[in-house]
Amino acid sequence: MALSCTRPPREARSRRFAGADLHAYLEECRHLALDAIRTIIPRDTAYGPVLYELMLDYPLRSAKALRPALCMATCRALGGRLEAVLRSAAVLEFYHNAFLIHDDVEDGSHRRRDRPTLHELHGAPIAINVGDAMLSLALQPLLDNMATLGLGKALRILQTVARMTRETAEGQAIELRWVRRGCWQLSDADYVLMVQKKTSWYTFAAPMVIGGIVAGVPASRLTELRRFATALGTGFQIHDDVLNLIGAESLYGKEIGGDLWEGKHTLILLHALRRASTDERARALAIIRKRRPPAGRRRAEGDRLRGLVARLRARGHVTPAGQRALEGALRGPATGAKTEADVRFLRALIDHHGSIPYARRVARRWAERARRRLAGIERWMPPSVHRDFIRGLVDFVVTRER
Amino acid sequence: MALSCTRPPREARSRRFAGADLHAYLEECRHLALDAIRTIIPRDTAYGPVLYELMLDYPLRSAKALRPALCMATCRALGGRLEAVLRSAAVLEFYHNAFLIHDDVEDGSHRRRDRPTLHELHGAPIAINVGDAMLSLALQPLLDNMATLGLGKALRILQTVARMTRETAEGQAIELRWVRRGCWQLSDADYVLMVQKKTSWYTFAAPMVIGGIVAGVPASRLTELRRFATALGTGFQIHDDVLNLIGAESLYGKEIGGDLWEGKHTLILLHALRRASTDERARALAIIRKRRPPAGRRRAEGDRLRGLVARLRARGHVTPAGQRALEGALRGPATGAKTEADVRFLRALIDHHGSIPYARRVARRWAERARRRLAGIERWMPPSVHRDFIRGLVDFVVTRER
Repeated sequence: MALSCTRPPREARSRRFAGADLHAYLEECRHLALDAIRTIIPRDTAYGPVLYELMLDYPLRSAKALRPALCMATCRALGGRLEAVLRSAAVLEFYHNAFLIHDDVEDGSHRRRDRPTLHELHGAPIAINVGDAMLSLALQPLLDNMATLGLGKALRILQTVARMTRETAEGQAIELRWVRRGCWQLSDADYVLMVQKKTSWYTFAAPMVIGGIVAGVPASRLTELRRFATALGTGFQIHDDVLNLIGAESLYGKEIGGDLWEGKHTLILLHALRRASTDERARALAIIRKRRPPAGRRRAEGDRLRGLVARLRARGHVTPAGQRALEGALRGPATGAKTEADVRFLRALIDHHGSIPYARRVARRWAERARRRLAGIERWMPPSVHRDFIRGLVDFVVTRER
Repeated sequence: MALSCTRPPREARSRRFAGADLHAYLEECRHLALDAIRTIIPRDTAYGPVLYELMLDYPLRSAKALRPALCMATCRALGGRLEAVLRSAAVLEFYHNAFLIHDDVEDGSHRRRDRPTLHELHGAPIAINVGDAMLSLALQPLLDNMATLGLGKALRILQTVARMTRETAEGQAIELRWVRRGCWQLSDADYVLMVQKKTSWYTFAAPMVIGGIVAGVPASRLTELRRFATALGTGFQIHDDVLNLIGAESLYGKEIGGDLWEGKHTLILLHALRRASTDERARALAIIRKRRPPAGRRRAEGDRLRGLVARLRARGHVTPAGQRALEGALRGPATGAKTEADVRFLRALIDHHGSIPYARRVARRWAERARRRLAGIERWMPPSVHRDFIRGLVDFVVTRER
């Protein structure tokens, strides 16, 4: 991989990126980013297995590492050097993984990239602290940019990161407010604004803008890059919502249907609710507002209590009516959680109203918008393998299976 | 308060700070810091009551605001201007409150500054996101320092903040590792290292170093400031552990005995465990390793289930033996949580072995060490009301009641 630093492969050729090329490009960038991430994390073993080692857990799981690849590709497509952008690209991946750790705690998610989430493995306290420490460590390499990129570029990158983290937190706040208020009368425009702040900004906009800054393009072109990236990111997230329902878990890496269990505000569910009859909507909203069933220790407690009730019944210490009352209390209102049947109902509603094909159409419209914006950018971004990669992403984000 | 910006009060006089003066100085700085914090938080109401408004919740609760006061005092005592240091001082208070929000989630704390913790009021997801957003927003004012303080000072402040957040996360990691491994065979030196990283760095060292940077003192003097602050912070935290056991909740603002319920690693408990007999130690460790009882919804669930069992017993659906088994399961191993009697046992052990007087002695030794280091600093820090405040803190940190 060190090879790429000195001799960029396939630099001059320009052609349509096939799927395999795109994945090879991603994979190459991922290894470069991982190497750079390792230089960000202190090699200090004094904190045992609860801090620095855990920072590599998510990054080392199978992941696309889209953000560093997009950052590197933009920089190189615009004539910047790979070595100049590597550190900033790695920081983006580092931020992403810190956000994922905190997101997983906030959403109570069980799986991430085909393995249990960090807080399932180590508990929420350690997971929150690791995320905080990653957000902290990300500052130093951005300061180090001053020495290698010069003050102006380093400052503009820091400003972009400051904006990025703010947009992400605001997007997250929009969604949390909807959850808190049980707010479901939302338009596609509401959803799109949330997604553009929560996902597009840090997944697409910031990587491309930072790549452009390192390459030295003027502010007006940075705006063009950001507008393209925003459209691309919107299509990406809508397609992600689709994959969450119909993807293959082995490829997608998260539990299929997890968004329904979590009651996430997706374009798909919003569409189905708009199309639903009054009765269907009332039932769906009642389900959505239930929480997801507990996992881990809390579920084990419930199982243990149910087992005790059954044994007491078998030994005649509890009457059949008593058993029913206790089991009811331990199951339904006691946990007040969604059941398999609940989630099947939501899924049937979505299928009945064609909400998945609808979301696919909307995602493709955003990809088309991105394609038009890229055409404008290609007037000043010369042909290269890196530009091909960026162009390849336009199809990829709305057709990918992972 | 705006007065202070243009005409520092009592600037030239130097005398011993009485308690009232110290609190007046703190209070004045607190208002200056709050005004500056308000300029950091966007006045954007689009995110409803789940983001920006919540950032002011903890800062507006009754608090000492020690960090900004120490930062301002150090800067002004060394000839720096108040306006030059205000923004950085406010950022420190902002970071502190973000850490508190995440700490409270990690520790499962119920109360903070005499009110329920943020996650008790709004749930962990909103609390984690607010903390993240605060950590993000803190970057911009530090970048804005470039324009007002010049590049060199602004960069040194950013480097100090990067180090501060890293030290804090490492200190937190040391403690989390102890919790995770059930590690209690620890020396005072282990405890002191943890506290110096987790608390002293961001409460005392960073504020003083940043105050010194703004005032323009050379690196060797920054080191002297840091060494003084580290000793002061160690005494402060040990005294804080004492207050947690014997303070008045109305002054202290956190629940008295909360550290015992949480099983926190304090100098006091470590001392009591070292002095305890083998049997006492085994019983104490068994208690410490239990978790604290659930609060809020989970406790309400337990109460509801116990009520149901009582009603079923009254109606003859459960035998007396069945009731005992169910109540036992809902109480003891079901929750596996500490009881009032457990915490009383720990407290008695601490009193029996004189661990509180011991901790007071150790705290005073650190204060004395700080006093000696301050004497060195006073060779180049001229007399002023600000220097008096700093000197006043040496007594304050180990005698305060809040």
